[in-house]
Amino acid sequence: MAPELEIAAHRVLTREELRARLQSVGEAQYHHRHPFHLRMHRGELSRGQLQAWALNRYYYQSRIPIKDALVLAKSDDPAFRRVWRKRILDHDGDQSGYGGIEKWIQLAEATGLTRDQVTSCSGILPGVRYAVDAYLSLVQNGSLLVAVASSLTELFSRDLITLRMEMLRQHYPYLAHGLAYFEGRLTQAPEDAAFALDYVCTHAPTREQQESAIGALTRKCEILWAQLDAIDYAYVQPGNIPPGGFAPQV
Amino acid sequence: MAPELEIAAHRVLTREELRARLQSVGEAQYHHRHPFHLRMHRGELSRGQLQAWALNRYYYQSRIPIKDALVLAKSDDPAFRRVWRKRILDHDGDQSGYGGIEKWIQLAEATGLTRDQVTSCSGILPGVRYAVDAYLSLVQNGSLLVAVASSLTELFSRDLITLRMEMLRQHYPYLAHGLAYFEGRLTQAPEDAAFALDYVCTHAPTREQQESAIGALTRKCEILWAQLDAIDYAYVQPGNIPPGGFAPQV
Repeated sequence: MAPELEIAAHRVLTREELRARLQSVGEAQYHHRHPFHLRMHRGELSRGQLQAWALNRYYYQSRIPIKDALVLAKSDDPAFRRVWRKRILDHDGDQSGYGGIEKWIQLAEATGLTRDQVTSCSGILPGVRYAVDAYLSLVQNGSLLVAVASSLTELFSRDLITLRMEMLRQHYPYLAHGLAYFEGRLTQAPEDAAFALDYVCTHAPTREQQESAIGALTRKCEILWAQLDAIDYAYVQPGNIPPGGFAPQV
Repeated sequence: MAPELEIAAHRVLTREELRARLQSVGEAQYHHRHPFHLRMHRGELSRGQLQAWALNRYYYQSRIPIKDALVLAKSDDPAFRRVWRKRILDHDGDQSGYGGIEKWIQLAEATGLTRDQVTSCSGILPGVRYAVDAYLSLVQNGSLLVAVASSLTELFSRDLITLRMEMLRQHYPYLAHGLAYFEGRLTQAPEDAAFALDYVCTHAPTREQQESAIGALTRKCEILWAQLDAIDYAYVQPGNIPPGGFAPQV
């Protein structure tokens, strides 16, 4: 490697350069490009396939506030915790319980599943479970910087959610009354992402820390992608549902 | 549920009943039935697909002695540890380093991969990594009984390995000189399984413990199965290799 490139590999990135690197991870690896999402947006999924998706992704949704509690537990700064705490509220709701998890259950019900089928988490694909648990493990075992950076997939979710809501309404009208989860995320995710991005830019003063943040976002993209790999494998070609996996009746 | 069945649900199983329950888990869920193994045994895999399999399964092989060290660390009985220690030796080898891991590298080389491609673990599918890490987590967080019971997939491996060696020799003759790993496992696995089965039958005096052992074997079958799900998904249909995954050149 030429000497000037070796120096460049250790130079601290400017805030704009770091943002650009994070952005490029998302463009290459965020799950907006995943074959299962492409099928969904082309209107090719059956009701049973949408059930399998909603059921399996419920496991991810159900772990998000646990993930955020692990993040809270890493910070000794009340100001940080006050801001981050909002995420738990967004998903768990207030006293009435009406938060993101409840809204996801309503989406799953719109596909034709019962509440019990969803919340029992029986029939979740092992591959989905392992990927989600790997996210908890990444957050639990990483630094606070890594934990925050792994949330930066929210930088990319707004465009995907906007497209998805349009495509779900167009191709699967029976889901139209179950889209409150996505409506909420349209405003929540960008607010959360802006805070997390500012945190990462401010709290990664060395190139090594910057690279660990970029690596954490890459790992998180892999975790989202692998969940869809498992769903696409099990529910698109016949004969691939693993023993014990949810079997759609429609 | 009828009262006699409720009682039956809490009755301690006889040794023979417990063996039969464990056996039936294997018949239903061991990965001898997985579509990818069926393709392999029918001779349908390309060299590139066998490379992807050998490369990805190397990650599993490389974690086995770490798993066994976690098991050792759970036991306060020198007699148990003396027996279990053999597993680490089998995989890591003696001073010459010639153990199961080295033999697996030779199998991977027979597919056409270089040693570096294999041992760097770059290009391993995230789904395979998460499943293997879930095995380490099961062993680390479970009781010694659960850790030992999760090894009982070795009860079923001899038949699969016997069939596999015959089919690999028949359909993929270029692998014939790379089968030392399987030859070793033909005698190692049944010895190990006999000890582990006796341990489980002796150290699960309550029905609850017996069920936890059966559950651990079920979880382990899911872990093996999910690894093949990820490989089958990425390498059988075109267009499914995730960003960063190994791309066969042949």
